[in-house]
Amino acid sequence: MIAINLMEKYSLISETWHPHQIARVDDMHVLLARLKGEFVWHAHEEEDELFQVLQGTLYMQFRDRTEVVREGEIIVVPRGIEHCPATKDGEEVLVMLFEKQSTAHTGNVLDARTQTEYPKI
Amino acid sequence: MIAINLMEKYSLISETWHPHQIARVDDMHVLLARLKGEFVWHAHEEEDELFQVLQGTLYMQFRDRTEVVREGEIIVVPRGIEHCPATKDGEEVLVMLFEKQSTAHTGNVLDARTQTEYPKI
Repeated sequence: MIAINLMEKYSLISETWHPHQIARVDDMHVLLARLKGEFVWHAHEEEDELFQVLQGTLYMQFRDRTEVVREGEIIVVPRGIEHCPATKDGEEVLVMLFEKQSTAHTGNVLDARTQTEYPKI
Repeated sequence: MIAINLMEKYSLISETWHPHQIARVDDMHVLLARLKGEFVWHAHEEEDELFQVLQGTLYMQFRDRTEVVREGEIIVVPRGIEHCPATKDGEEVLVMLFEKQSTAHTGNVLDARTQTEYPKI
């Protein structure tokens, strides 16, 4: 029951593509991540995933198009939909994620950047 | 799979203390609300509730203390904990809420401002 300052929490994260857990709400967790470059194509078969852009511009690639998500915007990727988050021109983008604790980082694929644990900060 | 701009959505809301639904993530929904003045003391026996302050300063009153939640901060009110959100000096505060769809607006109490439906915008 303490206020959590998002930018203070980001200062504890240095790596990109490695979500850190800042809170839980029922069976969902709230994650912060730094994104830079292109991630890996994947889907979460059983869980939706919400991205909120807090800084920068996120390019959420779907197989048939790319949705641009700017600062102050959110996007929900429904379960089962292949997606690949990306940033452009070397920009580091700060996002907050809301998803079930059961959600695997890279869903149905395994990548060198796949994380199986999200540090609590 | 569309970017949702939070400030554009707020422009569709005029009343205070009336959450509007902008998205769903699994069994949670994402709500926007304008808060002004003091709400009603209540608790949600079965659900946690996340508040993110997007503009202004929220005073989350608990029975034994008040937590100040500023712009860029979140707070999670755990299930069963009595709380009463408030703003000061007539400030209108913009919040985003994440909570289960089963969460009753004013939990275990009924108030003149209790809403049973959250418009989708």
